[in-house]
Amino acid sequence: MSVTDYVEQNQERFQAELFRLLEIPSVSTDPARQGEVARCAEEVAAQLRAAGLEGVEVKETGGHPLVYGQWLGAPGAPTVLIYGHYDVQPEDPVELWTSPPFVPTIRDGKVYARGATDDKGQVIAHVKAVEALMKAEGKLPVNVKFVIEGEEEIGSRNLAPFLEKNKELLKADVLVISDSAMFAPGKPSIVYGLRGLAYVQVELKGADSDLHSGVFGGAVPNPGFELCKLIAQLKDEDGRVTVPGFYDKVVDLSAQERSDYARLPFDNEEFRKELNVPGLSGEKGWTPLEQRSARPTLEINGMLCGWTGPGAKTVLPAKSMAKISCRLVPDQDPEEIARLLAEHIKKLCPPTVECEVMSLHGGKPWVTPREHPALECANRAVQTVFGEQALFVREGGSIPIVVDFQNILGLPGLLVGFGLNTENLHAPDEHFDLGNYQLGIRLSIELMRELATYKASRL
Amino acid sequence: MSVTDYVEQNQERFQAELFRLLEIPSVSTDPARQGEVARCAEEVAAQLRAAGLEGVEVKETGGHPLVYGQWLGAPGAPTVLIYGHYDVQPEDPVELWTSPPFVPTIRDGKVYARGATDDKGQVIAHVKAVEALMKAEGKLPVNVKFVIEGEEEIGSRNLAPFLEKNKELLKADVLVISDSAMFAPGKPSIVYGLRGLAYVQVELKGADSDLHSGVFGGAVPNPGFELCKLIAQLKDEDGRVTVPGFYDKVVDLSAQERSDYARLPFDNEEFRKELNVPGLSGEKGWTPLEQRSARPTLEINGMLCGWTGPGAKTVLPAKSMAKISCRLVPDQDPEEIARLLAEHIKKLCPPTVECEVMSLHGGKPWVTPREHPALECANRAVQTVFGEQALFVREGGSIPIVVDFQNILGLPGLLVGFGLNTENLHAPDEHFDLGNYQLGIRLSIELMRELATYKASRL
Repeated sequence: MSVTDYVEQNQERFQAELFRLLEIPSVSTDPARQGEVARCAEEVAAQLRAAGLEGVEVKETGGHPLVYGQWLGAPGAPTVLIYGHYDVQPEDPVELWTSPPFVPTIRDGKVYARGATDDKGQVIAHVKAVEALMKAEGKLPVNVKFVIEGEEEIGSRNLAPFLEKNKELLKADVLVISDSAMFAPGKPSIVYGLRGLAYVQVELKGADSDLHSGVFGGAVPNPGFELCKLIAQLKDEDGRVTVPGFYDKVVDLSAQERSDYARLPFDNEEFRKELNVPGLSGEKGWTPLEQRSARPTLEINGMLCGWTGPGAKTVLPAKSMAKISCRLVPDQDPEEIARLLAEHIKKLCPPTVECEVMSLHGGKPWVTPREHPALECANRAVQTVFGEQALFVREGGSIPIVVDFQNILGLPGLLVGFGLNTENLHAPDEHFDLGNYQLGIRLSIELMRELATYKASRL
Repeated sequence: MSVTDYVEQNQERFQAELFRLLEIPSVSTDPARQGEVARCAEEVAAQLRAAGLEGVEVKETGGHPLVYGQWLGAPGAPTVLIYGHYDVQPEDPVELWTSPPFVPTIRDGKVYARGATDDKGQVIAHVKAVEALMKAEGKLPVNVKFVIEGEEEIGSRNLAPFLEKNKELLKADVLVISDSAMFAPGKPSIVYGLRGLAYVQVELKGADSDLHSGVFGGAVPNPGFELCKLIAQLKDEDGRVTVPGFYDKVVDLSAQERSDYARLPFDNEEFRKELNVPGLSGEKGWTPLEQRSARPTLEINGMLCGWTGPGAKTVLPAKSMAKISCRLVPDQDPEEIARLLAEHIKKLCPPTVECEVMSLHGGKPWVTPREHPALECANRAVQTVFGEQALFVREGGSIPIVVDFQNILGLPGLLVGFGLNTENLHAPDEHFDLGNYQLGIRLSIELMRELATYKASRL
């Protein structure tokens, strides 16, 4: 039986096995879900073993475990390290989901569940590709190593130490990650850039406890109002971040890159309509596509203060809190930006309230030269499966560990996604196109074939 | 037995009966507590009956019920209408309470419970005063009518219609309310002014659902940031509200009133230390006492947006919400201010997000001339019980229904409180001094005696 026939004939089982993963609420940020995260790692390991991978192990990391598996039966051929993550974002606000977030539900050819596109559906496609090649051909064209972690959504804090400790085990020639999106349905893209992240939490405190807004209001500082005043000053009228030094290390897009961006099939008005937002807004002088992927940002991710339940509570809040994050582009440094941001916030804070800024999360930005040969292998695999050239783009999201793989293992990275940006990742009603799941399995197969030639051409 | 001895000897039972009320979570804003509110009304009625009042009835209002009771056995003597409320504010944030909010707990001579000082402890003192007079003397020096409602904390929306419909039943000569505070411990005060309230909720909407802040951030408007920008513009650098027309109808304090304010025993630095706030802040040109009671304000009562749980969720929120309220002074009109505020907010809101402003709650400000004779009766009662002159002050809180009693029933109002501003009303660890509970009962007795002479002197 041909590999393609095998993929075709096992379609339903491949879906059912993906659904088994989607049923597990592996929310890594939630301490109450620690057991579920561990259960999910075991299920991933079981599927690696069933695919024919060897040395499969659930490895303790100090945090949530990581799943490893390998197949090294192609001596002389290159070794492909495939990375993904089995942990997911929280499902809140759960009341906005059409079907329960951990009950995979098919509607219109898509499976709806938290983690469907980010990243369970994408990473498991590679596992099924291995299974298909092993069952149909008895071997793989390349050596393969899988690293599937459980802490991507909380900053992958234990991955870099794991890479450091296991440099020999993880020796490889190229890194393949599918945790990104196609540029549009049917427009597969190869991502050569990712943004970094600096995430802080700001807390202001006025009085020791909430007060009656009538009895005290007017003379006692309001941490809610002060927070608003402070945040309002973090961007200017042109949408530029006002933190001193923020743009100092930003490498602007080259003229070539800007003209590439302009050629991408993207309609701003259609994008606006799809989101049903009254208008787009962003840094002056850049297109929405550039703003979303190649320019640094400052966003409010969350804010809380005082009474937020139904009705009117006349309280003067004691505290306020905001979660603020910046997406970063080369060569901004997350630690430096978090520090500059914290310093600026403290400087803006009036002496009538206490201010604390905590850094919660950080990741470096990343770019690979577009002319790198591994990217051409991926381009050919895309041509075989989709019948057209891949688009080369930058993504706005962050996969900080790509930087770690590059720094620690010296691996060039290659990001080929089967997801779509419209699939509500990190939001209610996350979903994954089951057609793209199948195409992803086929693309993974072709990619392994193409990469078998890569080493030869490089050596 | 003298009335004073009766009060002394029944001290423990009077406390136990107050605690029975405090155990009932009569949170009027919470639909889930409707049954508890009704249960509390029944308990209030039972205590009115036990005190010797007649015609006691739990009256349906269309909302939470109201408790009525009367004693009309003093023909020729004036009739005193005593008003209070048995409903309470929500107990959130419940984790900041030292003891559970609905388990009355005595510490250091104070009872800790939601509603202890606002207003269960204060209103029931009058009921116990009636009981003491009836048991010790067999009669009261004046006729008495009690109106104890269950919707004060949510705007008393059914009280004015009740007053309208029951003008004959409620005919009286003077209104007495104990829902305010002594100026300081041992410094009883008669309140001759109250602030009004205009309370709105602002909701901004960007995209239809929360989005990934990496994939979309930079080009899609952030309702959290826009809310901050908008709120920051609602006050200027001098702490003055920027809403056009906001101050147009404000009657400034007279020179006499300002010099009275200056004579009140109040230390700004001590006040700041008590609250443990790094600094005071308010409208330039006015003292903290004036800012808190005689000047209009704009406060953030609550704010919510995006992810507020633990850790870092990289979400671009679809919505943001703020609860904003203004305390009003004569002659500001709550409906007009809510309208001006809503118009200003909508004008400030950028076209990239949708903006909705809902008016939640309103109440008119109120002032009685200081030279009114009923206030002198209260002053004499204070002298009898406390041995010193009462202080005449304005309060910063709102009792909108005082205005209704004046408008609908033509009653002059007289506010004598036994509470303290430091008793955490509307906040965690609300409490009520049990010594002041006893003094309140005695003050109510003396007040009835003094008011018996008031009508005579007035006629």
